[in-house]
Amino acid sequence: MSRAFKLIVSSGIAGCAVYAVSQNRQQKFTFPRIQTPVNAATISTAQHLKWDSNWDKREPLKLIPPSKLNEIKENSEEYMELLKEYTPTATRRLIFIRHGQYHTEYKDDEYRKLTTLGQEQAVYTGIRLREIGIDFDRFVESSMTRAIETSELIRMQLNQEDVERTDLLREGSPISPEPPFRYWRSEVSVHTDQPRIEAGFRKYVHRANISQKNDSHEVVVCHANVIRYIVCRALQLPPEAWLRMSLKHGSMTCLTIFPDGHVTLQCLGEAGHIPQDKLSIE
Amino acid sequence: MSRAFKLIVSSGIAGCAVYAVSQNRQQKFTFPRIQTPVNAATISTAQHLKWDSNWDKREPLKLIPPSKLNEIKENSEEYMELLKEYTPTATRRLIFIRHGQYHTEYKDDEYRKLTTLGQEQAVYTGIRLREIGIDFDRFVESSMTRAIETSELIRMQLNQEDVERTDLLREGSPISPEPPFRYWRSEVSVHTDQPRIEAGFRKYVHRANISQKNDSHEVVVCHANVIRYIVCRALQLPPEAWLRMSLKHGSMTCLTIFPDGHVTLQCLGEAGHIPQDKLSIE
Repeated sequence: MSRAFKLIVSSGIAGCAVYAVSQNRQQKFTFPRIQTPVNAATISTAQHLKWDSNWDKREPLKLIPPSKLNEIKENSEEYMELLKEYTPTATRRLIFIRHGQYHTEYKDDEYRKLTTLGQEQAVYTGIRLREIGIDFDRFVESSMTRAIETSELIRMQLNQEDVERTDLLREGSPISPEPPFRYWRSEVSVHTDQPRIEAGFRKYVHRANISQKNDSHEVVVCHANVIRYIVCRALQLPPEAWLRMSLKHGSMTCLTIFPDGHVTLQCLGEAGHIPQDKLSIE
Repeated sequence: MSRAFKLIVSSGIAGCAVYAVSQNRQQKFTFPRIQTPVNAATISTAQHLKWDSNWDKREPLKLIPPSKLNEIKENSEEYMELLKEYTPTATRRLIFIRHGQYHTEYKDDEYRKLTTLGQEQAVYTGIRLREIGIDFDRFVESSMTRAIETSELIRMQLNQEDVERTDLLREGSPISPEPPFRYWRSEVSVHTDQPRIEAGFRKYVHRANISQKNDSHEVVVCHANVIRYIVCRALQLPPEAWLRMSLKHGSMTCLTIFPDGHVTLQCLGEAGHIPQDKLSIE
């Protein structure tokens, strides 16, 4: 049986084959059609029941250009070599940290600095990370004042200078929650924030690229709504559920992404490294 | 508009009224039909998208005998009094703790005692709970050896003697996970464990009963699979997702259940109170 035919058959009841036609040449290779949601808001929970192994579009067979695949026999030595070449081998360990407590009495971001307690929380988190005893391969921070300050205090504990600043992970409304907020909110914030935060998720949360040779430990300092949304999306849970979780200031949320695309939540809102009398949430 | 009619209308497109007919008398009160899954295995994710506010069957209006409701006018003073009488007022804070590391080289539960490390983890967890500085209102332990030992070590730190032992929360296979286990497993364990663990969930996880006057803090010492399943069920997430989470030995997972039935996950697998070199998962 040809690979193309096998793919059509294996795509099951809903299977539907489309021929990949480029402007330059017609490919012989046939893809089963994959229903890709345009954005998270349109994801139906029916798609969540079955784990989507190509959730980050990095499944090896989907990374290989069809022109390469068509030239060789399925399961041949050459085929297995090619597959291996496109198969990620590294595991990514991501630690998402919520910033420390900050001054909410101001409206402008630049004045919403960490409180003294918030600074202490960041230091405790930095110390806990230092105690892991490893070098972090990447350090990312949201571009909001409270995240930058938290990141700086943590990095001082780690002697980590390099940091990547991003607007994609700034705080916002990732998706209207279910059950809904207890008070009315306009739809404007979700309308503007949703695609940005989804873009942040897609940029930072995926299995290792094939170019990554070693396992990595990465830290991302950002915000409660962003982290909760990312957890739902990474675990393929309904993203509307994000408000059913809550995260303390300075808490850690750990996701492991294995080379085969499996994702495990190792902890959520872990703040046991902060003394009881230094805990806060708002 | 009569209450009965309003209920029919408010039950929406899928609304369907059935008349509650007891063997003794016909009730005038009309219920919208609520689709109740027989067990968790039959819950479709479509039902998860919308939050089911009567998930624990303790919604005030569902607790009032129809005979009482029929005798009074809707929204009358008497009606509001009755509703108030059946409305829970207390918040429940549940801390689920995974037992410490144990001897997996034996098969019989009685020999699967805590390792020295497992004992230390339990003590750290006990100390962290003591530092909260409150008296716990209820202490529950699974009847498996490693849970009993962990519970005992924790309770020694808290001077807590009273404990409720249960078979319902013993370790087991709550539901076949999605994505599936990486190796084959027979269906026998899920077949026998699923209804038991679901029964444990229904017994211990629900909004406060109307008889509970004060907020409560409760500790439950049990097992990783059980806790992960309970988190999915309590947050109304697809229960098949339980294996996408992982819990360290001695870690805490905190659920808050508000009087209106809303549930929040405060932390999952929190083990920051245990030193880095004392952490373990298997």
